[in-house]
Amino acid sequence: MSILVADQASDAALRRVGAELDRLFDAKIAAAAGVATHLERLWRVAAQRTHGGKYIRPLTFLNTADSLSTSQGARIETDTLVTLAAALELLHYSFLLHDDVIDGDTVRRGRPNLIGQLAAEHGGDTGRALHWARSCAILMGDLLLAEVHQIVARAELTPQKRTRALDLVAHAITDSVSGELLDVGMSDSVIEPDLSTILEMSRLKTATYSFELPLRLAAALTDAPAATEQTLARAGRHLGLAYQLHDDLLSTFGDPVTHGKDAFSDLREGKETAIIAYARMTSTWALIEPHFGSAALSEVTGLEVRRILTDCGAHSFVSGLIDDELRAFRKLLSTSDVPETARDTLTGLASALADRTS
Amino acid sequence: MSILVADQASDAALRRVGAELDRLFDAKIAAAAGVATHLERLWRVAAQRTHGGKYIRPLTFLNTADSLSTSQGARIETDTLVTLAAALELLHYSFLLHDDVIDGDTVRRGRPNLIGQLAAEHGGDTGRALHWARSCAILMGDLLLAEVHQIVARAELTPQKRTRALDLVAHAITDSVSGELLDVGMSDSVIEPDLSTILEMSRLKTATYSFELPLRLAAALTDAPAATEQTLARAGRHLGLAYQLHDDLLSTFGDPVTHGKDAFSDLREGKETAIIAYARMTSTWALIEPHFGSAALSEVTGLEVRRILTDCGAHSFVSGLIDDELRAFRKLLSTSDVPETARDTLTGLASALADRTS
Repeated sequence: MSILVADQASDAALRRVGAELDRLFDAKIAAAAGVATHLERLWRVAAQRTHGGKYIRPLTFLNTADSLSTSQGARIETDTLVTLAAALELLHYSFLLHDDVIDGDTVRRGRPNLIGQLAAEHGGDTGRALHWARSCAILMGDLLLAEVHQIVARAELTPQKRTRALDLVAHAITDSVSGELLDVGMSDSVIEPDLSTILEMSRLKTATYSFELPLRLAAALTDAPAATEQTLARAGRHLGLAYQLHDDLLSTFGDPVTHGKDAFSDLREGKETAIIAYARMTSTWALIEPHFGSAALSEVTGLEVRRILTDCGAHSFVSGLIDDELRAFRKLLSTSDVPETARDTLTGLASALADRTS
Repeated sequence: MSILVADQASDAALRRVGAELDRLFDAKIAAAAGVATHLERLWRVAAQRTHGGKYIRPLTFLNTADSLSTSQGARIETDTLVTLAAALELLHYSFLLHDDVIDGDTVRRGRPNLIGQLAAEHGGDTGRALHWARSCAILMGDLLLAEVHQIVARAELTPQKRTRALDLVAHAITDSVSGELLDVGMSDSVIEPDLSTILEMSRLKTATYSFELPLRLAAALTDAPAATEQTLARAGRHLGLAYQLHDDLLSTFGDPVTHGKDAFSDLREGKETAIIAYARMTSTWALIEPHFGSAALSEVTGLEVRRILTDCGAHSFVSGLIDDELRAFRKLLSTSDVPETARDTLTGLASALADRTS
């Protein structure tokens, strides 16, 4: 389990979120045990797969809520915050599961994902084993999505705050679905892949639920002024876009041993990223196009495509976009009414995200 | 739009649920219009597809709540009940969408389902068009599942009743997923298809959310005694199993023009039903087996298999099971503390369900 921001507070928060997730999965496993064998197995595999995450969303939420409540004086029961933090991780995992079904992925973070594992348990890469495993992923995604709502709906908050939390979750889910539609639409040639659509897709699909939601939820629950929440929302969108672009760079140019993704999987799948959108606009695209989306892409050709992407300026273009987003993020925080403690927390988080290699 | 129980109260309830669903979909369409073209289109297609349903679950809930509150004197705001009734229909549709993805179905009720329609809009039966359409169905199922929870979490109920409603929804979703796992597991040869597993699957996958949930929710919200709720829960499971078995009979032996399913689609897909489980135990199975699960099953052979299924006693066996379930349902109601008005409502519903041809 890697710790994104290696300070004592984050370390403690990380342990509490992990314990809360364990408690939740253990309860589901216990409820299914003896009455629903396959459901029990499915919960066990899901529990294993949520371990080892970076818990970026729960930590962003908890650290921000903590620093805001210190400066604002509003105190929410820590147990409630930890439960909601766990819900943010479950929402993330629910999206990942349905994404993996849609993308046909069987590997994540360098090891079989839930689909890969369940397929392996039932005969491997056969049609039936994969169908079983994908159906399980759809259903577990549903269970987790339902659980997220159960947690928020039952959270020990005032009715007003609970409604605000429900609003923010609804907004994040709508944006994520909109973003996923753009992503799938581009890969299925239903939607034209241009740079602005790709950036919009990344913001909707990743930034809203991963950063805007945790930051706004922290603000809403700690009675931060509306202006602070709005600033945090905008800051979260900048940070989230930087995060997704950084992820794209790591997938295409990073060390697969470190970041745990298949080398060249984005290229093999023909994934529409900002890197590709830039390359399409250059004269070197003709050299890349024959290999883009080719499942048979070899290691040698993959390395060559990667070199062309660097030479044509796609890597530095996307690095530039990331810098722009991070600059906008810092500027927003510094000129706004975000309290200094929260500002320090968030700039620390941004630096950690910008430095990550996985 | 067919009315299951053709009385004035049901007619009025039907119109109110329909209006509530229209209002809800219109709001989603309006929110997406201009900002998310594909999401807007997806909401429009989903809205069209929920029209023409029989609204069995909302009507079961509303009629039961109405008759229980008359006899118990507990009155809940009708608007709240109608909103919750609409949520039951959305839950049903959310399950149907993910079922259709899992089963690879593109037709429902005799016309293209959401997947069939969206695929047709983007080039028909090609790999990409189908992938786009199935991804849309996964995502719309997610949006509807989220919406169900939003409605329940915001319903104007006392905190105690809201928590009870959340409990009942969680229980129904868990059972439905368990049932779907059994269903998929049998079709993917992960689980052995025997009669008891098939009956368990039908109860979990259909009876819980379709009948137990509406009946218990009606009881919980109208302050019915715990004993009444428990009796209604058991009655709902009997009624729900009868309903699913009747559905299986209609699919295999009914008139496809009337019930709107592909003739022989259950046979072609190799769907494990109680009919098949019985036939497997007879000596005539050897005649059926070569054609069971054969996508190429012709009309002539299909009619022949259907005749063999009748001759071997599978049809009358399943009819007998239905009669048993309906008898148990009526006995439970008559010997229990379910008020007479509610009892009349439910026996009327059971008769209507038993007589339906679609």
